[in-house]
Amino acid sequence: MDNPVLAEVTRGNTVESRHRGSVIVLDADGGVVLSLGDVERPVFPRSAVKAIQGLPLLESGAADHYGLTEPEIALAVSSHSGEPLHAETSLGMLRKAGRDAGCLECGAHWPMNEAAARAMARDGQEPSALNNNCSGKHAGFVCLACGLDEDPTGYVKPGHAVQQAVRAALEEVTGARHSSDHMGTDGCSIPSYAVPLTALARGFARLGTGQGLGPKRAEAAARIRKAVAAHPFMVAGTGRFDTRVMGLFGERIFIKTGAEGVYCGAIPELGLGIALKCDDGAGRAAEVAMAELIARLLPMSGMEAAEFTPMRESLLKNWNGIEVGRVRAAQF
Amino acid sequence: MDNPVLAEVTRGNTVESRHRGSVIVLDADGGVVLSLGDVERPVFPRSAVKAIQGLPLLESGAADHYGLTEPEIALAVSSHSGEPLHAETSLGMLRKAGRDAGCLECGAHWPMNEAAARAMARDGQEPSALNNNCSGKHAGFVCLACGLDEDPTGYVKPGHAVQQAVRAALEEVTGARHSSDHMGTDGCSIPSYAVPLTALARGFARLGTGQGLGPKRAEAAARIRKAVAAHPFMVAGTGRFDTRVMGLFGERIFIKTGAEGVYCGAIPELGLGIALKCDDGAGRAAEVAMAELIARLLPMSGMEAAEFTPMRESLLKNWNGIEVGRVRAAQF
Repeated sequence: MDNPVLAEVTRGNTVESRHRGSVIVLDADGGVVLSLGDVERPVFPRSAVKAIQGLPLLESGAADHYGLTEPEIALAVSSHSGEPLHAETSLGMLRKAGRDAGCLECGAHWPMNEAAARAMARDGQEPSALNNNCSGKHAGFVCLACGLDEDPTGYVKPGHAVQQAVRAALEEVTGARHSSDHMGTDGCSIPSYAVPLTALARGFARLGTGQGLGPKRAEAAARIRKAVAAHPFMVAGTGRFDTRVMGLFGERIFIKTGAEGVYCGAIPELGLGIALKCDDGAGRAAEVAMAELIARLLPMSGMEAAEFTPMRESLLKNWNGIEVGRVRAAQF
Repeated sequence: MDNPVLAEVTRGNTVESRHRGSVIVLDADGGVVLSLGDVERPVFPRSAVKAIQGLPLLESGAADHYGLTEPEIALAVSSHSGEPLHAETSLGMLRKAGRDAGCLECGAHWPMNEAAARAMARDGQEPSALNNNCSGKHAGFVCLACGLDEDPTGYVKPGHAVQQAVRAALEEVTGARHSSDHMGTDGCSIPSYAVPLTALARGFARLGTGQGLGPKRAEAAARIRKAVAAHPFMVAGTGRFDTRVMGLFGERIFIKTGAEGVYCGAIPELGLGIALKCDDGAGRAAEVAMAELIARLLPMSGMEAAEFTPMRESLLKNWNGIEVGRVRAAQF
């Protein structure tokens, strides 16, 4: 079975490119609200599950022990743009655990935010691990290791206590076995496990409602959602879709992008969990497909709908600023 | 009919993403050597047809009138990386026609070559139109306009003599009508016309052999192929696939990438024209699919094959330089 087209890219009046993928929306009881394409094929969720990966930091007591603030908790589940505030906040988290950026094992890359990257280059700076889009999550891992009285060294390795705790959380929340047969190494060097989209949607329905989770885990999930809703800049950055959507709807929705065309989300008031993957790994397509699902599922006032509408398509402008096409959801 | 998977992206032992597309290989008599997927759907060739768009510059006599060198002719059909030599060479072409960078209508963007872009930012420079990957083609358009005694102003517009000449060349070489119904605006502001892959493959078979072209056009095509083969850095840049392939095989092959997952090519000694499009517009997939076709079609010595093998896959390394997966051709 071929997956349906989720998104189209137009140029003039012609469709130039097409993105296929699969989508599933589940309610908190596991009932299927929407299912398109192959939703049982293993998919690497990549960064889309950072909110689940961040649960042990709170559940272990490490976050409170080190006095992590709401912005820091939001950053711990982020794929941030490497802007100065993101990098500084990551460093602050490490310092609370008595550590510094030398502890980070995520590798360095230039900020995803182009203006921030150009400014650093202009100032003769080189990027550090703090600019890595995963530095907040990794700072959280270091805090977790220290809180567990474990040496943080090697915290990215599958056998380290940190990754064992993360894997256990992923398995319990999604209900899927996280097998080393389907393990890969993520961009930031931690393990990523491919699991069916169905399991990811189930996990996000639980994350959004607490249903099916123990009270401590449900409380940690609620704190994470609350932190991100209050500080949406921290979870992504300037102009980013996740930041704009949660800036608009607050705690009514939680969404998170992952590399290679993955998106996960939860709509707590409806008890829904959402997971989608574009077959070809295109983030531009995953984003408009998620926008389409939000538009269909989330009740909005007229004013909210008006503010959300521009987020539903990406206008493509050329180097002279002329609009030449757009990325939009297909009729799926 | 769904198009077949042309390329796969792996992570660990799992296929993470898949790219579909269509491919056609024709011989100079129009005989089908290989055809996969829908090859009649209109496709914007984008920059893949720059060698055809460059024909009027030579045929009109403008290239010789202004004494354009082989590196300059190669740059006129390039999508270059905006490295210093590319930008300087574009400027040199403009000066030969008594013009400067102010004439360019392609818009400015940072060099595609990341090191070059970082170096410019470090030096407090801003990018100019000379860094635009299309600046060589545009400098060629300015030379063509001046050679035709036309005001270059507005040379990107469909009605300008330059674009009329370019469109006529595209129509004759590909044999396809270039209709305003399927016209879009390219990244550099010139018109792009969507035509079937079959027409593009036919055009490249003709470009590679001269068969079906008048003597003047065939000579211009041969000069362009020779110029690119002699100066493959000019057609792309440091580390780029087109530069590496033509650096290895010289005049035995001509290939050219286009935005949104297009590749065109010619193998003159076999009389073949090649055109492919990844449905989703992914350049990473188009490149390995073209590599697979080259490996299947072009006779190679053992040494050539050994040198070509590393170009057939892209290794994916994470921020710590660890190999985490690869982009490879699928079994198509």
